[in-house]
Amino acid sequence: MNDATQALPNFRSDNVAPVSPEILRAIEAANRGPAAAYGDDDYSKLLNQRFSTLFETEVAVFPVSTGTAANALSLATCVRPYGAIYCHKEAHIDTAEGGATEAFTGGAKLLTLPGRHFRIEPPILREAVTGAAWGVRNRAQPDAVSITQASEYGTVYPLAEIAAIGEIARDKNLSLHMDGARFANGLARLGCSPADMTWRAGVDILSFGATKNGAMSADAIVVFDHNLVEPLSYRLRRAGQTASKMRYASAQLLAYVEDRLFLRLAAKANSVAAYLGAGLAALPDVRLVAPVEANLIFAKLPALAIDRLTANGLQFARRGDEVIRFVARFDSTEQEADEVIALVRRAVTGPTSIGL
Amino acid sequence: MNDATQALPNFRSDNVAPVSPEILRAIEAANRGPAAAYGDDDYSKLLNQRFSTLFETEVAVFPVSTGTAANALSLATCVRPYGAIYCHKEAHIDTAEGGATEAFTGGAKLLTLPGRHFRIEPPILREAVTGAAWGVRNRAQPDAVSITQASEYGTVYPLAEIAAIGEIARDKNLSLHMDGARFANGLARLGCSPADMTWRAGVDILSFGATKNGAMSADAIVVFDHNLVEPLSYRLRRAGQTASKMRYASAQLLAYVEDRLFLRLAAKANSVAAYLGAGLAALPDVRLVAPVEANLIFAKLPALAIDRLTANGLQFARRGDEVIRFVARFDSTEQEADEVIALVRRAVTGPTSIGL
Amino acid sequence: MNDATQALPNFRSDNVAPVSPEILRAIEAANRGPAAAYGDDDYSKLLNQRFSTLFETEVAVFPVSTGTAANALSLATCVRPYGAIYCHKEAHIDTAEGGATEAFTGGAKLLTLPGRHFRIEPPILREAVTGAAWGVRNRAQPDAVSITQASEYGTVYPLAEIAAIGEIARDKNLSLHMDGARFANGLARLGCSPADMTWRAGVDILSFGATKNGAMSADAIVVFDHNLVEPLSYRLRRAGQTASKMRYASAQLLAYVEDRLFLRLAAKANSVAAYLGAGLAALPDVRLVAPVEANLIFAKLPALAIDRLTANGLQFARRGDEVIRFVARFDSTEQEADEVIALVRRAVTGPTSIGL
Amino acid sequence: MNDATQALPNFRSDNVAPVSPEILRAIEAANRGPAAAYGDDDYSKLLNQRFSTLFETEVAVFPVSTGTAANALSLATCVRPYGAIYCHKEAHIDTAEGGATEAFTGGAKLLTLPGRHFRIEPPILREAVTGAAWGVRNRAQPDAVSITQASEYGTVYPLAEIAAIGEIARDKNLSLHMDGARFANGLARLGCSPADMTWRAGVDILSFGATKNGAMSADAIVVFDHNLVEPLSYRLRRAGQTASKMRYASAQLLAYVEDRLFLRLAAKANSVAAYLGAGLAALPDVRLVAPVEANLIFAKLPALAIDRLTANGLQFARRGDEVIRFVARFDSTEQEADEVIALVRRAVTGPTSIGL
Repeated sequence: MNDATQALPNFRSDNVAPVSPEILRAIEAANRGPAAAYGDDDYSKLLNQRFSTLFETEVAVFPVSTGTAANALSLATCVRPYGAIYCHKEAHIDTAEGGATEAFTGGAKLLTLPGRHFRIEPPILREAVTGAAWGVRNRAQPDAVSITQASEYGTVYPLAEIAAIGEIARDKNLSLHMDGARFANGLARLGCSPADMTWRAGVDILSFGATKNGAMSADAIVVFDHNLVEPLSYRLRRAGQTASKMRYASAQLLAYVEDRLFLRLAAKANSVAAYLGAGLAALPDVRLVAPVEANLIFAKLPALAIDRLTANGLQFARRGDEVIRFVARFDSTEQEADEVIALVRRAVTGPTSIGL
Repeated sequence: MNDATQALPNFRSDNVAPVSPEILRAIEAANRGPAAAYGDDDYSKLLNQRFSTLFETEVAVFPVSTGTAANALSLATCVRPYGAIYCHKEAHIDTAEGGATEAFTGGAKLLTLPGRHFRIEPPILREAVTGAAWGVRNRAQPDAVSITQASEYGTVYPLAEIAAIGEIARDKNLSLHMDGARFANGLARLGCSPADMTWRAGVDILSFGATKNGAMSADAIVVFDHNLVEPLSYRLRRAGQTASKMRYASAQLLAYVEDRLFLRLAAKANSVAAYLGAGLAALPDVRLVAPVEANLIFAKLPALAIDRLTANGLQFARRGDEVIRFVARFDSTEQEADEVIALVRRAVTGPTSIGL
Repeated sequence: MNDATQALPNFRSDNVAPVSPEILRAIEAANRGPAAAYGDDDYSKLLNQRFSTLFETEVAVFPVSTGTAANALSLATCVRPYGAIYCHKEAHIDTAEGGATEAFTGGAKLLTLPGRHFRIEPPILREAVTGAAWGVRNRAQPDAVSITQASEYGTVYPLAEIAAIGEIARDKNLSLHMDGARFANGLARLGCSPADMTWRAGVDILSFGATKNGAMSADAIVVFDHNLVEPLSYRLRRAGQTASKMRYASAQLLAYVEDRLFLRLAAKANSVAAYLGAGLAALPDVRLVAPVEANLIFAKLPALAIDRLTANGLQFARRGDEVIRFVARFDSTEQEADEVIALVRRAVTGPTSIGL
Repeated sequence: MNDATQALPNFRSDNVAPVSPEILRAIEAANRGPAAAYGDDDYSKLLNQRFSTLFETEVAVFPVSTGTAANALSLATCVRPYGAIYCHKEAHIDTAEGGATEAFTGGAKLLTLPGRHFRIEPPILREAVTGAAWGVRNRAQPDAVSITQASEYGTVYPLAEIAAIGEIARDKNLSLHMDGARFANGLARLGCSPADMTWRAGVDILSFGATKNGAMSADAIVVFDHNLVEPLSYRLRRAGQTASKMRYASAQLLAYVEDRLFLRLAAKANSVAAYLGAGLAALPDVRLVAPVEANLIFAKLPALAIDRLTANGLQFARRGDEVIRFVARFDSTEQEADEVIALVRRAVTGPTSIGL
């Protein structure tokens, strides 16, 4: 009773993935006898310790059920109701979370910025922040910056760029939030330490995604700025985001980082994406919209070709008339990528009228 | 790495329970290959159908990650920001959800009512509703009633009482919400159909609990009033309550109702609770605070005796100086109940000074 | 085109009063030529200075258009969304402001307390605060106390009581808000200094009412706790409470406190109230519900008598079957009080069936 | 004690204006004896009738204390928390009200549109609305359009443009809100009836500004869509926007529309603005940024010249390096305009280095 039997490979989203076997086994192992609720179980108690080791600093970790909750509650803890959050104009928090950030902040403003390769550019941010209406009572007051690593278009901020953004944030007393729905994919790309990509570069609070990369239903908020821990803990409970049987989410998260599983899973996804991206880029009439640096491929091709792919039943996400997105997962294969490349080749080289 | 090896039985809460084997198997079975996200998978598509069969009417079902989310989002969909919700003064929504209902409604008011056996009494409700400041602009306007079945103290509304409340609600154009965190325990007690205990008695929207009774992390909102379906669906997404890999929650919920598993699990919990309640009530200096009609036992006993139980390491919840709560689960046993009874017996019959 | 020609005296509310001549003249005087907007005019600039002199400490003053705005925005500045506010169960903020405090705080909870003479009793408050669920994530966290001086029933907190409440607040790190819709009436009663009745007794922020006591449309928030000034200033603008032509509100407030006008006006109202209260108390079948300490009289008399007064066209507020409220104003007279006493005498001594 | 004695004319904003004599007289006339509170007085009761006559249809009128309150509460009544509002990217609701609309709607989104002359262009609106993510749960749902008449840059929507926008709104079931902070200036420009400029063109709810054009503190919400009346009335009270002594606001509003006073006042302001605009446009190095159609003049001139004007003490608003705004009022004169023109002439023709 699932879609596994379908003929064509599915590159629609990372969310279509199953749970990785290691994580499912961890859930099963946690399923023995009673355990204290609301985070007082042994798994949850380990979380802070394991993640503090992973991040090489003392962090607080809060499992949440979705990335939207992670983002919106992180930001609500950093931002006053009359505050403003700088983000890229393609940021998921602005375009695809149903206004969760506005809801949980009590109506704060998202100020969107342009930026090449779907990343905030430090000079653009600095200009915006410097020119903000500081202290003007009828204007939203800058409180936070949110960056997405890897970005919504699969590009990856280099460390120097995060650090430059972190410096601007620190200069202006803004919190720096990282939407890490694809944290592992970004980290695998950079090959640096989790610490380097986060708090050492100025990140105060992190939406640590696991669900897209092999977990079942376990994202987390990782808090580097200790002042945010207590208020966040209340906001989570009030938001219905404090799971009673938390051991199952915690067990997933522990397994996810155990022996760097999360990096192995992400590296696999990135690798298939790179392979698929290269294959597509070599096709006539196909152009990559953004460099493939993580597990997402955005390709521009003729609308007619896209229509054909849709008609064929290929699973992908369309973004406008001539742009499509493919997402590679930890369970994707080069063979599946080859199939997609072949299908796209046929679609773009077919007759120019839509005789499907 | 869990608490299973502890010496004493754990009757602290239903939330300490593991996942029932049937539900864990359902999760494992769902873990094959890719599946569409955000509820477009085969499992989630089945939910509405199976629950409509179960409830003998067309319902919409939305999985959520916690009961708090279920309650607060259900009520936010029924109630205007300047509206009011009638509930019992011991209602979980007022006493133990961190203000989630106030947060998600935009600041609606909870109007609490007294009532014997921790249930709203229809005459008290009617008097409150009738005497409300209808149309007065500086007073909260009645919009909903929320009842908890089984109640926070383990008592169960008889059908006639729900119907009487439903009639008041209908007369006054109020929505009727049921907090069914222990829906199965209430239903097992009454032995009626799910339809009889809900929409046939006037319930418009139901927080359908499964987590406390054997699921891993899967509660749901079941909507009987079709007008609420669309607005609820937006509020859920905005609240970070729309799981991307929804198949896992849906698979749990399907298994939970398959072959009435939920009733078998609840019947077991209720049965152990009845056994434990009877055993405790027979002890000297022990009095049941409320009739044991579901899986909760509230007992009054001397503070000194409670201190002894705590010192012994018995797991229960203390509610004030002289009241304690025990909760039986699907995986509780009469043997464990016997152990508790023996411990309590020793605690209440010990010397009157606290030589522990 | 107003109600001045009506035959019977009007004791319905202080809000039915006209503007005192002194304040109207101040408005007229302010109406010359252009003046800077949003508080940068000369009148508004004087406000902080004059009120700081009046209160013998440095305060910040913000004119607002209503007492509801003053209360709700004061409290929203003191209280976290997951916070709680202690107030008397008859507090206006809970019973008569349409949920403004819940709205502006983002859904904080009002925790109501009983208390003789419609005042919070320090021991009851201390017990409530001490027994609060501090640090428990699913329970509202105490953040503020709100007292009303003079109270909603016209009683007045003695200084020692305010100080005792202030001490509890300070001990527990709660903000102390005073709803001073009838601040002048309370102050005139006590005969102490504004400083003694506020910050010296622990008050952090004050809703300073002027509209009920002779102003046209000018209440204010007076801030003693300097940490609240900046966040309040943003919240006011965002709430639509920062008047562009602020000079007119400021001119009213300056005239209101000039030469202690506000105390003279309040003393007059209090005096007529005392006279009316004594006259009513002397009648058969009439009993004062609360001591008359400010400008409000609550009297209990037979329902039939109240019906007769209503039928006669007397202007008062009915509070239940057998309780009515009279409010004396700066422009009320003893002659009007005599008229009311005579009417009530006839109403209570008439035949026992309602032959009106 | 005001700024009237200053040497230079003040064209900084319409908010610096005093109250027109007619309106001050109306306030004085209302100040006789007691009058019912919260809108039950004779003045307030007349409001609906007089405005219904003025607008040639049955309307409900609610006085409010500021334009920000008028806008935010109007929109909050039209828009779901997960809804979206289309407005021009220079709309006051987005740029200058401290996030009031986000606050009162519970976090709805403002979607800003470009448009020549600072007006929404119907084709751009239609494209945006048509391309909206209707029904997509993680995207804000279009609920309203807000236009500003006269616009923030003093341009005026022709009737046909409003009607075209109204048609789009009707087609898509969106509410159409008009921010009429300068309603009279727009209406005076068009010379049409209030009905033509509002409901006949599809406007559902109107922020009716009076404060900028001669009132003291009295804006209003005029409701054409009867479904909005009741919910708005609750929201106003909850927002602290229901004045107790409402007669004074109502008396202002009645005087404001009596014998079309509001149009005479606006015509005067528009006329001085046209005169000033023409005079400035004729100067070397000065260019009008927008056509002068109401009472605002935006002029581009060298930064150095602006610096000189500032140094001279001329009162205007700077909008960026090279743009300044002048605002003419009902009490502005052509003589004052001449003074400004002379000052600007000297500023732009002075030496090119800033020897002030």
